[in-house]
Amino acid sequence: MPRPSEVTVIEVGPRDGFQAEREFIPTAAKIQLINQLVEAGLPEIEFSSFVSPRAVPQLADAAEVFSSIDRSKGTRFSALVPNAKGAARAAEAGIDEIRVFLSASDSHNRKNVNRSVEESLQGFEEVMAVAREAGLPVSGAIATAFGCPFEGDVPVGQVGNVAKRYSELGMVGVSLGDTTGMATPPLVAERCRYLREHVPGLEVTLHFHNTRGLGLVNVMAGLDEGVERYEASFAGLGGCPFAAGATGNICTEDLVYMLHEMGIETGVDLEKLCGAARAIEKVLGRSLPGQVMKAGPRLKLYPMDEVQTAVG
Amino acid sequence: MPRPSEVTVIEVGPRDGFQAEREFIPTAAKIQLINQLVEAGLPEIEFSSFVSPRAVPQLADAAEVFSSIDRSKGTRFSALVPNAKGAARAAEAGIDEIRVFLSASDSHNRKNVNRSVEESLQGFEEVMAVAREAGLPVSGAIATAFGCPFEGDVPVGQVGNVAKRYSELGMVGVSLGDTTGMATPPLVAERCRYLREHVPGLEVTLHFHNTRGLGLVNVMAGLDEGVERYEASFAGLGGCPFAAGATGNICTEDLVYMLHEMGIETGVDLEKLCGAARAIEKVLGRSLPGQVMKAGPRLKLYPMDEVQTAVG
Repeated sequence: MPRPSEVTVIEVGPRDGFQAEREFIPTAAKIQLINQLVEAGLPEIEFSSFVSPRAVPQLADAAEVFSSIDRSKGTRFSALVPNAKGAARAAEAGIDEIRVFLSASDSHNRKNVNRSVEESLQGFEEVMAVAREAGLPVSGAIATAFGCPFEGDVPVGQVGNVAKRYSELGMVGVSLGDTTGMATPPLVAERCRYLREHVPGLEVTLHFHNTRGLGLVNVMAGLDEGVERYEASFAGLGGCPFAAGATGNICTEDLVYMLHEMGIETGVDLEKLCGAARAIEKVLGRSLPGQVMKAGPRLKLYPMDEVQTAVG
Repeated sequence: MPRPSEVTVIEVGPRDGFQAEREFIPTAAKIQLINQLVEAGLPEIEFSSFVSPRAVPQLADAAEVFSSIDRSKGTRFSALVPNAKGAARAAEAGIDEIRVFLSASDSHNRKNVNRSVEESLQGFEEVMAVAREAGLPVSGAIATAFGCPFEGDVPVGQVGNVAKRYSELGMVGVSLGDTTGMATPPLVAERCRYLREHVPGLEVTLHFHNTRGLGLVNVMAGLDEGVERYEASFAGLGGCPFAAGATGNICTEDLVYMLHEMGIETGVDLEKLCGAARAIEKVLGRSLPGQVMKAGPRLKLYPMDEVQTAVG
């Protein structure tokens, strides 16, 4: 497959990143950060979840956030919903796309949403009905698509079967989630090829975590398979509940930097995006994993008298 | 080019990493850490520099370290030398290979060693004479080979000309150093192809920094060009003097993990290597960038009742 010349970068930090924070991020701060991401030209933003406020208190303000963010730039706003009730709230808020999710491995799905994979899939029928009624497209995420922290390897057919069901349910796309950073280049290639062959109508998005340092390497593997959609989190926001100190989502700025340096267009303004990344660091009061926001663009030049080089 | 099926991983942490530390690492600790790296099966270790103790006090104990490390496992030990005097000390210590270095860009070379590139090259003639006398092979590093923090882009011909001179001087190999993390996949491909065409006899090693998050991505680009030798630093030791908070060398464990997952052999025991990485974190008393040492191997399984998953 030829590498794509354009890529859609989907920002998921406001959902995947914010929900992992202990301290509630004030609604006004969320709105301002999302507007910075809009201003940076991100074409799609997964801005929140319409999920029980008891389950995810951090995202209880999804509707309020959506009512105040900048929708004038053509950004596509999606949100995660766990069930028909969430879908109804999302539709009422007026978002652009609904996203459902389950885990490819039964044990992770039970742990996460207390249902078997089959029960999750059946529940999505109601979500689809709500979305159809509202005229909203639905896409589906598959967590643990490259491996499960409880079960280990996840057979490609298990992922493929869920994707097929997504397609049969009328969803427009599938996102393969590397929930705990178990993806590797050969697994990425295998899964992309399988979906291309067995579920050709479904748009594929890849969602990698950098837990074992391979996040952007796996994007390269996806590009080699012609995949044009990648999810990432600004500043690399979002940790890993399984490994203290390990990182979570790949970092949007670093991803955009890599794509631009490879001559692949994203429509994103890297400098503005780095501004948003530095802004979330300030809001949270701690350093986050993103590298480009710290090091600056590739051709940032330094005055010779300001830096002490190391010998060698 | 087909990707190699075996790769030589060269550990440079004891030189490139240790020298960047403010606090002197006690000689005994250095020896113990290097022995852990030997025990992990690293085939080559750049263990120190024979450089003026005033210039790099951290590595003033090079000869003492070498006299006590485990040389029974066939590990190849190299050290950096700045001049003939350093080469004589290295030869006297009995190391396996001498390494010289300069920067492809004149301003960085002046800043680093107070010489023009041409002056450095002329100085290497004396080093070669000492090495010949001692029967030691010499290889040469080229810093700022993918860009210079003072000058910006570095033309490939400039790197190629230095490599050609290295070859004419009788060196056995060249290492392209990505001193401040300016390498990108297209630049890696361009430089590797240029050297293959113009200096075919010289063994190429790649030395990437992860300053902008692309360290392992650039290794992928090198593998696609058939390059079989990569330098890395255990735990990702070694910062970047240009950007606070940015990382330095790519991390040896993460590199080895990636190679093994791609079916490429290294002969390195990943678990033992992670042990060495955790040991240097303890010695320094701070967290270092390596991811695999924190997250564990890919198929590390977790008991379901120990982990709270995030919803989504």
